[in-house]
This record gives sequence, C-alpha cells and structure tokens, in this order.
Amino acid sequence: MTAQPISRFPVPDLVDMPEDIRSRILAVQEKSGFVPNVFLALAHRPDEFRAFFAYHDALMERDSGLSKAEREMIVVVTSGANSCQYCVIAHGAILRIRARDPQIADQVAINYRKADITPRQQAMLAFAMQVSQNAQTVSESDFDVLAAHGFDREDIWDIGAISAFFSMSNRFANLVSLRPNDEFYLMGRLPSK
Amino acid sequence: MTAQPISRFPVPDLVDMPEDIRSRILAVQEKSGFVPNVFLALAHRPDEFRAFFAYHDALMERDSGLSKAEREMIVVVTSGANSCQYCVIAHGAILRIRARDPQIADQVAINYRKADITPRQQAMLAFAMQVSQNAQTVSESDFDVLAAHGFDREDIWDIGAISAFFSMSNRFANLVSLRPNDEFYLMGRLPSK
Amino acid sequence: MTAQPISRFPVPDLVDMPEDIRSRILAVQEKSGFVPNVFLALAHRPDEFRAFFAYHDALMERDSGLSKAEREMIVVVTSGANSCQYCVIAHGAILRIRARDPQIADQVAINYRKADITPRQQAMLAFAMQVSQNAQTVSESDFDVLAAHGFDREDIWDIGAISAFFSMSNRFANLVSLRPNDEFYLMGRLPSK
Amino acid sequence: MTAQPISRFPVPDLVDMPEDIRSRILAVQEKSGFVPNVFLALAHRPDEFRAFFAYHDALMERDSGLSKAEREMIVVVTSGANSCQYCVIAHGAILRIRARDPQIADQVAINYRKADITPRQQAMLAFAMQVSQNAQTVSESDFDVLAAHGFDREDIWDIGAISAFFSMSNRFANLVSLRPNDEFYLMGRLPSK
Amino acid sequence: MTAQPISRFPVPDLVDMPEDIRSRILAVQEKSGFVPNVFLALAHRPDEFRAFFAYHDALMERDSGLSKAEREMIVVVTSGANSCQYCVIAHGAILRIRARDPQIADQVAINYRKADITPRQQAMLAFAMQVSQNAQTVSESDFDVLAAHGFDREDIWDIGAISAFFSMSNRFANLVSLRPNDEFYLMGRLPSK
Amino acid sequence: MTAQPISRFPVPDLVDMPEDIRSRILAVQEKSGFVPNVFLALAHRPDEFRAFFAYHDALMERDSGLSKAEREMIVVVTSGANSCQYCVIAHGAILRIRARDPQIADQVAINYRKADITPRQQAMLAFAMQVSQNAQTVSESDFDVLAAHGFDREDIWDIGAISAFFSMSNRFANLVSLRPNDEFYLMGRLPSK
Repeated sequence: MTAQPISRFPVPDLVDMPEDIRSRILAVQEKSGFVPNVFLALAHRPDEFRAFFAYHDALMERDSGLSKAEREMIVVVTSGANSCQYCVIAHGAILRIRARDPQIADQVAINYRKADITPRQQAMLAFAMQVSQNAQTVSESDFDVLAAHGFDREDIWDIGAISAFFSMSNRFANLVSLRPNDEFYLMGRLPSK
Repeated sequence: MTAQPISRFPVPDLVDMPEDIRSRILAVQEKSGFVPNVFLALAHRPDEFRAFFAYHDALMERDSGLSKAEREMIVVVTSGANSCQYCVIAHGAILRIRARDPQIADQVAINYRKADITPRQQAMLAFAMQVSQNAQTVSESDFDVLAAHGFDREDIWDIGAISAFFSMSNRFANLVSLRPNDEFYLMGRLPSK
Repeated sequence: MTAQPISRFPVPDLVDMPEDIRSRILAVQEKSGFVPNVFLALAHRPDEFRAFFAYHDALMERDSGLSKAEREMIVVVTSGANSCQYCVIAHGAILRIRARDPQIADQVAINYRKADITPRQQAMLAFAMQVSQNAQTVSESDFDVLAAHGFDREDIWDIGAISAFFSMSNRFANLVSLRPNDEFYLMGRLPSK
Repeated sequence: MTAQPISRFPVPDLVDMPEDIRSRILAVQEKSGFVPNVFLALAHRPDEFRAFFAYHDALMERDSGLSKAEREMIVVVTSGANSCQYCVIAHGAILRIRARDPQIADQVAINYRKADITPRQQAMLAFAMQVSQNAQTVSESDFDVLAAHGFDREDIWDIGAISAFFSMSNRFANLVSLRPNDEFYLMGRLPSK
Repeated sequence: MTAQPISRFPVPDLVDMPEDIRSRILAVQEKSGFVPNVFLALAHRPDEFRAFFAYHDALMERDSGLSKAEREMIVVVTSGANSCQYCVIAHGAILRIRARDPQIADQVAINYRKADITPRQQAMLAFAMQVSQNAQTVSESDFDVLAAHGFDREDIWDIGAISAFFSMSNRFANLVSLRPNDEFYLMGRLPSK
Repeated sequence: MTAQPISRFPVPDLVDMPEDIRSRILAVQEKSGFVPNVFLALAHRPDEFRAFFAYHDALMERDSGLSKAEREMIVVVTSGANSCQYCVIAHGAILRIRARDPQIADQVAINYRKADITPRQQAMLAFAMQVSQNAQTVSESDFDVLAAHGFDREDIWDIGAISAFFSMSNRFANLVSLRPNDEFYLMGRLPSK
C-alpha cells in the first residue's frame, strides 16, 4: 500500500529542498516518528509551504480560548463535510491524541450533533460548519449565540478562521489527491501505556 | 457611507501595528492611493496578516502559465459563487485593470459561461469552480480536459490553489463582514487617459 | 465587443417590426439614448413582447408601497441568485439611478444581507428570495414578519409578484443568451453633474 | 371543502370586475363549466390579469412544432419540480384531456423519466427542467441535443419560454396559496362517452 | 399500455413461486381485485419479498396512535419527495380510500404544507420529511414539537420508521423501474355508492 | 462513556424479550463477544426486529456476485453520505474484517473516489451512491456501465437493494440516536495474530 503516490504532483527529495523546509520536515519527523504527507506534497512549492504552515501555526498554536483539542474538532468536522480523506484521517489522529479520547474523531467526522461533546462544543462546531458551508449568512445573531456559550469575540475569530483555513486545506488536499500516511489510522486509538 | 465599520472586529491604528505590517500597508497606500480594507482587518492578527499575504503573493505574483488577469478571473468567479461582497468588488476592480476590460468582472462574477473569454479560459474557470464547490470529485480526467486546452500540470496547481486560497479568503471576509472600499467600485470602469 | 450577438435567436430589424412594437422601442431609445437588448430579442415574438412589457409595467410602474428603487432591488437580488447576466447588469444600472447610489447594485447582487439598506428592505429581500428559491414554503407566518416591518398585503403581493416575474425573465434571458448593452455597465456609477 | 379560501388575497365579485375581465371569465365558465381559480385570484389585479393571460395564450395557443399536449407536459413537469399544487392539479387535468391519456399527468408530475412518452418528449422535458432549475447552464450543446430529436430553434424557444413562464406562474400560485378547483381532480381520468 | 414491463428484472409466474408467496399474492388479488405490481416484482427474490412485507405489515398494520390514513399520508409525502412513481400512485390510491377523501393524495404528494389536513398532521408530515431528507439533524427538540401536538414517543417511532421504510421502498421501486398498476390511478377518486 | 444511552427509546432486558429474539441476540453475543446495539434498540419492537434482520440477512448473507467485503463497502459509503454514526462505525468495523484491510473503511466513508479499490468497485460504489441520493435518475444506461465492469443484473439488484436497505437503516439509526458500541472503533484495525 505504501507504494501508492502521495500526491498527483512531483514530490521533491529531502536533499533537494531549501534548508528551512528540510529543517522543518526533519523536526516533524523527529517529533512524530514520520513525515506527514502534507509536508512533502507542499514542498513542491516552497513559498506556498512556508505560508501554509505559518498560517496553520498562527491559528492552531496561538494562545486561545479554544483548547487544542477543540481546534482539531473544528478541523475534523469541516473536513468531513468537505470529504477530505487526508484531513479527516490525519487530523482525526491528532484530535484523538489531543482529546485523549479514542472515539471522538470518528463521532465528530460523521455527525458532530451526536458526538460526546459539551453543548458549548456543539455550538462551536455548528458555527464552524456555518462558516464552512454558508459563510455568507453569518450575522451578529450568530455571534450572540456563541457569546451565550461563553465564547468571546477573539474565540469566534478563531473558530471561523480555522474553519476558513481548512476550507482551503481540504480543497488543496483534494486537488493534489493527498494520501494519508499509514501511521495516522491507528494513532490515538489504543490506550497509551 | 464611509462611517460604516469595515470589520466586525477591532481595527488597529497604523501607529500601533508592528513595523513590518505598517510598512507593507504604507507601501500599498503609496501604490494604490488607498489601503484596501483587508489589510486593516487582518492587521488585528499580525501573524495571520503575514501568512495570508505571503500565501496570496506566492500564488498571485509567481511566474505562471496563467496571466495575472486570468488569476483574477479565478478569484472573481469563485468569490461570486461564495457570495463574498468584498472579494467580488475588490478583485473585480483588479481584474478590470489587469485585463484592461471594463466589462469582464461583472460578466464573470454573474455567469462565467457567458463571459467574453476564450474557450481555454472557460475550461480554467470550470475547473476553478469544481475545486471551489466539489473538490472531492477532482480526478485525472479533469486534468486531461485542462491539458487539452494547453494547461500543464503546474498551471493546474495554480488554478486549483488559487481557487482553494480564496475559498478561505471568501469565508474570512464573510466572517468579519469585511467592507469593500469605496474606491473599488469604479476602478477600471472608465477609459484610462 | 459590440459585434457579439445579442441573442441566440433572430433579431428583427426595426423596419420589419409591427408598428406598436417599433413605436415602443423608438420611445425607449429616445428616453434612454439606446435600446436595451431585451426589447430587440423579444421583438422576435411580437405577442410575447407585448405581454412581457405589459406585465413588467403593471408591476414596476404601478402605485405601490414599494419605491421604484426597492422594486429594482428585488430584481437585482433575485437575478443574482439565478445567475442572469443581462438582468443583474441592466437592472443594476436602473437600481443605481433610482436609488441615486452607485454602490447599492453590486452590494445587493452579491450578498444583500450585507448591503447598505434598511432592516425593512432586508426583510423585503429575504421574502423576495424565498419566493424565488422556495416559494412552496411561503406561509402566513412569513406575511406576519413582513407586516411587522410595515408592509401591507398589497405590498407583499408586489414583492412576491416581482420576484416571480423575474424568475421568468431570468430564465428567458438565459435561454436566449441575452447580452447586456455596453451602456449599462457604467450607468449610475458616476456622480451626476 | 369548497368553503376554503381560494387565495390569500381578496377575490373580487364578478360584478365588480372590469368588463373585459368579466367577459373573459364568463367565456371560460361557459366553455369549461366552471371558473378556474387562477382567473379569480388574478382578477384582484386587472392589469396583471390581462398581461398574464396574454402571455399564457401567446405561448400555449400559438402555432408551434409542439402539440398542445406536449406544451401541457412541460407545464406539469416544471410545476411538479416547483411543488405548485394548483399548477400540477389544474394543468394535469388539461394534459389528460389534451393527450387523451388518463395516466400521463401523474406519471410526468412525479418522474418524467419513467413516463409513457417518446424519447423526443423525454428530451423536451429534460430541457424544460434545465431551464426551470439551472437556466444559467443552457448552452448551444443543449440546442444540438434537441435538434437531433427534430426540434427546430422556434420549438426550442417554445420549450424554454413555457418553462420560464410557469416558473413565474408556480411562484405566483404559491405566493397567493391558490387553491385548485374541485373539478380538476377528476377531469380526464374517466373514459369519455 | 398494459404491455409495458412492470420491472427491469424477471417477474416469475404464479405457478413458479414458493407456496407462501403465491398464497399471499392470491389473497391480495381476492381482496383487491388485482395484484399490485410490487408483489410480483419482489417475488423474484422470495426472501426479500417475505422480509419486505413482514416489515411493511409490522409498521402499517400495528395498533398505533396514528390512523391508517395518517400512515399513508407519510408514505405519499416522502414518496413524492423521492420522485417514486409507483409509490405515489399506489399509496395515493390507498390514502384516498383510507381517508375517504378523493383530493388528499394529490395535495399531499405535491405540497403537504397546503393540504387540507390538521396542524397535528402538518407536524407529523414535517417530521416524516425531516427523517426522509435530513435524518442526521433529528434531535430531542423535534420530539418536543411533536409531543406538543399530542404524539407520544411510540407514535414518533411510527412516523420515523414509516418514513425510513419508504426511503428504502422508494429506492427499490426506482431501481427496478416498478410500474404502477392501471387500477391505482382511479381508485378512491369517485364517490362510492 | 458506557453510561450513555444507546437509544432514545426504551431498551428491553434480555429476560423480557421473546424467545426467538433473545436466542438470536445470545448467538450474536457468543460469536462476536458483545451485542451490537442495533439488536437491543430494535428489540423494543419485536416484529420490526424480525423483519429487519430477515431483510438484512437476505441481502448480506445470500450467494452473490458481490463479495461480503464489497457489500460492506456499499453500506459504509452510503452510510457516510447519510451521516449515520452507528452505521459507519459498526459496518466500518465489519468491512475492515471482511476485507482484511485496516484502512479501507475510513477511506470509503470519507471519499470512495480516492479509496484503494478496483475500478470495478468504484463503479459499484458510484451506482450505490446514485441509488442512495438520486434513485429517480436510474436508467438502463447505468446498468450498461455496470455490465461493462462485469456485473450481471442480479449483482445490480444486490448493489441497489443494499443501498436501499441502508437508506432505511441509516434513517432508523438517526431517528433513535443509536449509539455505536465501544468495541467497533478498534475492530479490524490491528494486525490479527
């Protein structure tokens, strides 16, 4: 199975990548034990690689009223709605780990309304889906609903901006037919020792 | 009319912005005569500002088999499909200027199938719309159609990646209720002297 | 650009038209300075021409609780939803003139929810869109919402009937591939002297 | 059941109608044995009444390459798609009579693809549905398909214009909640003696 | 017209059917005067025949807070939404008979919102449509709406399960292109003597 | 997590179930090591339980040109499209086991077009999705496509009937809010020893 291409486009060898990109990839490999294919596929376009991950980190690593697990929930639910195989499988793995919950990713990807999450998280995901599928309808009354669940306006920016970023990411992954790494399928499904 | 807010979120004063962001904004103002509101709205989040424009420039300024006018066509057609007021009006202005055609933007925004463009451009916009609305269905047969119109694979990446980037940008603009500058409405509509 | 056909179907010469139709067209030309292409395209079928404009005038020229600018808003918003190039561009021009507002048409055509209009006008356009896209769901509770904004039942007939009439008109224009006149693009965009 | 209102709007008494409208209604009553409710509901607005029926007759009574039964098929299939109770029930009755077929209307209203009609009629109804639901996609290639079934361009205008006219009519009927006359339900279902 | 095939698949002769299936079919024929085609088409697969009718009877014949006419309304409204010719025509006939109302089936099939039914029945059909078209959104708040109309939880199971069963049945009928019997078209339309 | 209800409706104790249902459940438990919740939820209605599983077995256990793994692929792809949490998770587990492939279920549930399956299986799933989402458009030309991939007409019945059966099952599971058993999440994901 590992002989399948990971992208419809050329994937450069590590030795041919610009130094900053190679360094980032080696750092990810050291931390995770493997290189998620999105890094390799995007390395075909170094400037886009740099901008993509800068944007990703700006949203997913910043201090926020949303926990890291909650941010991954947003990724998984919108990626499911956009039928993005790479994004659901890779971020599903990250969500399981961040939430320390082996079931959460499958539940959220298929139907977040029936996932084992809080009403506050339900409201968060409903808004993420609105931005993903009908952003033109967003109004102040939607902000009021979120405020009633304790989200401040910066939190709402985070929910919406993460949903918007993965609207791009999902489409990019489908464009290049990005293949999920074998490692993601099982990550976070087994009790850690 | 200019008293209307340009974003649902706080917009920082120029003096309070990080130096690199202020410089970029002043440069745009010098070149264009005004500051497009997307710069001001995104300055609320400097890291996202930097990543957004780095990504934008990586796609819209690179050497490409697509002309700059063609890239703006992609922006306008997908922004129309996503009902993004700021994006259609601002990039419609840029498209009129790049294409030196006062009618092209309105035509493309409403129904690209009836715009005064070439069959090659029709195929380009059909693919941009597929990535925008149904990216999960993209297959090699779609690449073949584009190849028959003379697009190589790097061109196809460009079409798809621009469509994907503005899938994000459209949603961001609708999230913050980004207001188009008054200047955009008339740009490129009058014969230049 | 003016060499492009204005319709997929034959367009008669003025001299070959029935007297009443030629008179109407000459009157429009005298008043507007040009003949909107819808008159020429429909002249191919004189009886349909007569009925179309009789219906149009019955709705758009009658005394009504809706201003003429408001009626053109309804035309523009529903024509945008139906991707009718002729209707958005031609009636966008008329809307700019009637409302004495160079920005209103572009705003309404792309996303009326974010246009610079009153809450009453928002409610009017929401109902026009419901009739345009989901007329089978119209119920008395929708009439109640409009009544709360000060619309009486005759006004509601007007909103709905204009939306319905342009459901026809949009489809006709797309059927014949009706080309907007060059003149419409710039009408009402410049300050009048 | 006959005590139910036939319209959400006032319905004038025959004696209060303008002479030309009353005459038309009395003529219909004499011919059909009853007054279809669309005449009474539209009589509330005499100018719209006149234009509506002038348009209707221009399309439905003219010499055409389409038989009258075929034109009613177009009405029934598009009215079914638009969930218009009055139009399906009233024009279903007319279709049964025109086609001398007690089953055709129910078949066409529910799923024209499985109706007992010719391949030529299938193509006609597929195009009527395209105009009804996605007119912005109509292109010359659609005309070519119809030409291959023997339709000339005037026939295609007729198919599209009838579909467009009933796009209006369906929405009007849903706006006013037009009630089908009891008589329509059984018309054309029994063998004539 | 009766020479048309009733299914895309082989239809066995009565003499070749298993005894239990032949008996059931003969019983239906004795009671109704004809054999509805669904019995013949399903006899091609005896085990599926047995399970289908066992399921049907379990839902449609059980003691329930829903009358038999109400259950047929659910069938007709969801079959209309799924464009199932056999189901609308056959169950429309049964609905007319059960409700002793010659108009109810046509009304419900086209637009249940405007049918001559009670507010309680409107709520029932709205929920049946939700299960048919968007079952993933069903929540306790939907149950509360139904409870306010006097439906207990067993009634709600019945509404939803009938809608679900005919989601299968509609698709099966479209798969095999099941032809409605001629007898159904007129059943229940004439006053019984 | 196991304290969560498995159904919105009452779930009977084993001792209170009819003998045949208890036996079937005990047999499943013996074979699988646990009782899938669909058995318990449906036991609330013994007649529906019996018919449901008889139907299920008639389709899923019969001799067929489709392998058991292929039949489970159909279940997973249509259940994904219908956002049925129970069905995707439970049948995803069965698919992994039947196909001896730990990745296949996640791939198929999210986007079958990019799953590691044969072109024949792609065609099978495309038809299953057509029956699931647009059964009214099924025509002989769809049968021809499947025939070109080697499916005979009985195979096509199987594809369509399984898709149809799970159209019911998905809706039932969403109606009762059926909870997947914890056991399903990990089944078939680990190499068997």
